[in-house]
Amino acid sequence: MGKKTVIGIDVGGTHMRSALVDSRCTILQRRRTTTEQSLGTAHVSHKLVLECRALVQEAAEMGASVAAVGLGVAGKIDAARGTVVFSPNLPAMRNFPLARELETGLGLPVTIENDANVFGLGESRAGAGRGIRNWIGITLGTGVGGCLILDGRLWQGDGLGFVGEIGHMIVWPGGSRCACGASGCLEAYASGRALVEGIRDAEARGELPEGDLHRLHTRGELTPEDVYRHALAGDALACSVFRTMGRALGLALTNLCTVLGLRNAVIGGGVSGSWDQFIEHLKESLAENARMFDPDEMVITRSLLGDDAALIGAAQTALGLEKV
Amino acid sequence: MGKKTVIGIDVGGTHMRSALVDSRCTILQRRRTTTEQSLGTAHVSHKLVLECRALVQEAAEMGASVAAVGLGVAGKIDAARGTVVFSPNLPAMRNFPLARELETGLGLPVTIENDANVFGLGESRAGAGRGIRNWIGITLGTGVGGCLILDGRLWQGDGLGFVGEIGHMIVWPGGSRCACGASGCLEAYASGRALVEGIRDAEARGELPEGDLHRLHTRGELTPEDVYRHALAGDALACSVFRTMGRALGLALTNLCTVLGLRNAVIGGGVSGSWDQFIEHLKESLAENARMFDPDEMVITRSLLGDDAALIGAAQTALGLEKV
Repeated sequence: MGKKTVIGIDVGGTHMRSALVDSRCTILQRRRTTTEQSLGTAHVSHKLVLECRALVQEAAEMGASVAAVGLGVAGKIDAARGTVVFSPNLPAMRNFPLARELETGLGLPVTIENDANVFGLGESRAGAGRGIRNWIGITLGTGVGGCLILDGRLWQGDGLGFVGEIGHMIVWPGGSRCACGASGCLEAYASGRALVEGIRDAEARGELPEGDLHRLHTRGELTPEDVYRHALAGDALACSVFRTMGRALGLALTNLCTVLGLRNAVIGGGVSGSWDQFIEHLKESLAENARMFDPDEMVITRSLLGDDAALIGAAQTALGLEKV
Repeated sequence: MGKKTVIGIDVGGTHMRSALVDSRCTILQRRRTTTEQSLGTAHVSHKLVLECRALVQEAAEMGASVAAVGLGVAGKIDAARGTVVFSPNLPAMRNFPLARELETGLGLPVTIENDANVFGLGESRAGAGRGIRNWIGITLGTGVGGCLILDGRLWQGDGLGFVGEIGHMIVWPGGSRCACGASGCLEAYASGRALVEGIRDAEARGELPEGDLHRLHTRGELTPEDVYRHALAGDALACSVFRTMGRALGLALTNLCTVLGLRNAVIGGGVSGSWDQFIEHLKESLAENARMFDPDEMVITRSLLGDDAALIGAAQTALGLEKV
């Protein structure tokens, strides 16, 4: 039946992006549509089936077959059962057997994996982690995700349904409140949400001067992109929020490298687009805090694949299922 | 030539302890003598050769042969070159090719490994880590050492000469000064040295009441054991120093389990004898800070082998060399 392909899907709270991927990690086709989760879990599941069917059809038109489907979803995922245990982006999917539902709808094997883990698989196979045996992955988005590639493989720990949750390392105990309920997590300083909250906290302290940021904040329209734009323009407050972000990332990486004895890290996710505003602060923090290793020998690189890391990585999990 | 055995040696700053170990991790003979490092590196090296020769002789008397020797040494070790890069306990041995020296003196293969790593190998093969695929090891001594057992093997990272340095995770940024030069390391709160410094700091703040602890401190004779004895007797200051120790350990373990996705830890080293004074505080800290996992499902156990972990673990490295 010709060339064998797999489908990789990044299931987000707002959009679902899918791709037909070949065994060399080349994306042959892409699709993107809204998730429409307000219409219910069954609706989202059905939309995923329709997206896959469309890609199966496109594959057939190329003379290719689709062997399996891999999903990447934020949150706590039970990969063995194919269940979304809890996803902050898809709260209605709590304990929903998404992979099994799609298998029934499609007649294809379906895997599901945490979104930061699929980022790790994608970058490892075809991106910034290629050829690197051991590395730490961090995804900067609304929250902060993470993964570990150890001995060339995605580290799964004891299979407890969470692993690589670097965003929930506590970097400053007793510090800013995190969405997870704890205080001082990396995510509370280095996520898109944290950038906006950094401005909000300044306002609460009476330290947000009149101006564009103040106006956006007051209207409830402030986005991480706005904070970035103001930092680029030299706004002192916006710059200080990125400084905190960089220093928090530096602390987390110092601690992880000290324990894991490795030297490579790859940072991705939408908020990594603000690289120029935090990377020097991250390096400063490494230089101040690292004692077991030479901070100049640490190699911190940006994701090469961008949004495609999740698609290619999700496709890898589908290939993995085939091999089992 | 009959039964095959290996020699494991724990090379400390004050004593060198050695043992004849069989392939089942049974200790057949032990020796212990002073290190006498004030007499120079060549002297220490020669004493190690004499200890090994005595054990080779004892093995022969049992009808056994010695296949190899494994050394455990605190500090930064280059296992591939057989060199002590830097040992806080044996400062004169900086860059000394100890394993090569002993090989020449003995005509046997000699391996060298970090002391916390040999602890991990010993407990993994014959102690509290037996049968546990993934676990975190922490040794509480004058300093704090650590190791990772991942997928049933001692994790070596990128082979950079350090790994598992849990004692130098920064738990409270900007906190107490650590021997390594950084601030807020776990070691600055959870080591034997930290227990003594906790009392010294109280004195500096004018918070050390008259009494036995004050007297010992003033004479410069205060030991971690004294702090433990006073905590046992209910001394509020000594108890608070152990509370800080437990909470620092809890923070480090919360962060590591969150990232590594595992649930087992083994704590050893001489200062782990004060278990009853810090374990509840450690668990309190896990309960407060853990969000990704249920802290009640964490299994924190004490070393089963005590001082023998280092001897058995060092012997394991010697067995490993044989296999190569």
